[in-house]
Amino acid sequence: MRDKDVAQTPGAVAQHLDPRVLRTRKRVVHAVARLLAERGIAGVTMERVASEAGVARSTLYRYWDGPDALVAEMVDAFVDIPDVPDSGDLRRDLVNLLGGMAEQLQSESTWAQVLPSVIAAARVEPEIRRRADRQASTRVDALRAVLDRATERHQLDTHVDLDVVLDQLIGPLYYRSLVRELDTDRGWVQDHVAAVLHAQSPSLRPA
Amino acid sequence: MRDKDVAQTPGAVAQHLDPRVLRTRKRVVHAVARLLAERGIAGVTMERVASEAGVARSTLYRYWDGPDALVAEMVDAFVDIPDVPDSGDLRRDLVNLLGGMAEQLQSESTWAQVLPSVIAAARVEPEIRRRADRQASTRVDALRAVLDRATERHQLDTHVDLDVVLDQLIGPLYYRSLVRELDTDRGWVQDHVAAVLHAQSPSLRPA
Repeated sequence: MRDKDVAQTPGAVAQHLDPRVLRTRKRVVHAVARLLAERGIAGVTMERVASEAGVARSTLYRYWDGPDALVAEMVDAFVDIPDVPDSGDLRRDLVNLLGGMAEQLQSESTWAQVLPSVIAAARVEPEIRRRADRQASTRVDALRAVLDRATERHQLDTHVDLDVVLDQLIGPLYYRSLVRELDTDRGWVQDHVAAVLHAQSPSLRPA
Repeated sequence: MRDKDVAQTPGAVAQHLDPRVLRTRKRVVHAVARLLAERGIAGVTMERVASEAGVARSTLYRYWDGPDALVAEMVDAFVDIPDVPDSGDLRRDLVNLLGGMAEQLQSESTWAQVLPSVIAAARVEPEIRRRADRQASTRVDALRAVLDRATERHQLDTHVDLDVVLDQLIGPLYYRSLVRELDTDRGWVQDHVAAVLHAQSPSLRPA
């Protein structure tokens, strides 16, 4: 797991500012991600996480009730509130945002490796579902902010249904990278954004 | 697991026409799906599958090398070659095909429950990846056949890039049902197909 994969936003534990606690949290989050990627949700036990992270089981139990709470904590560690780009160019802003999402979903990234297990766990654990939804919402909200601004600036046709555009921007990215492991490199993202914008708003022809 | 979830197309074992072998295969496929949905890939062991399916371990080993082969067999059982509808109405045909895919992805269906684990396993097991790709291709191919026919009949604008349309038809369905657990009922499928067709081919206004 690369350090840059883990956002430094506040989670349940990170709200304590004690640097020892922050270091523990980071080791625990990495251990949970490793176990989840290698063994699936059934492989995340308090004993294994304690051993992998090099912390005492009593320390784990001080902050987390059990494996589900650990997975929820890990999901939170990936909540990375993206800066909303504002270059004045709608297509460029969308390519930058969606390109960042595509990088996180590339198959060698930690998030891509744990996401199938997180999805499976979210079906049965409401707390993991809630965290996973918050995780996804940060990205959808950033894309929506870019589209809202473009509408205000009359860069998008007024008849455009933004929910449809969001589905069409995000959906193929997940289908390709998660379900099919097809290419979603920068070139694909550029073509994809251009196609969606042009289809929805024919006045937006390629520059 | 409902019987109708499991397609009766030939897999490794189904090629034997002995009805006892077919019944064994069916019980094994159901057991693998149950274990996978409940415990993830690490929960699929030869011992548990034999016990759940009520077959001898020696019988399992006669047909399958190990747990990965069992999961691959289960994926094959879901390869359901859809009839390509041809009502003469492009939108209706797409709604029927995509509506069938949406039903298979609804959260209580077996396929939706095992798909995250299949995706996770496909990342590390080439044989599972190959079967999962074949599974996905049957659906993409059916959609493509409907679009190709519409192009021949001049029901789609000739400039339309069919790969883009396929991404835009399938992607949001998987993102919504698999990643977000949002609504993908018949009404959503109808609105979605209409929006994609209208955006790509503005001459296709709602009937």
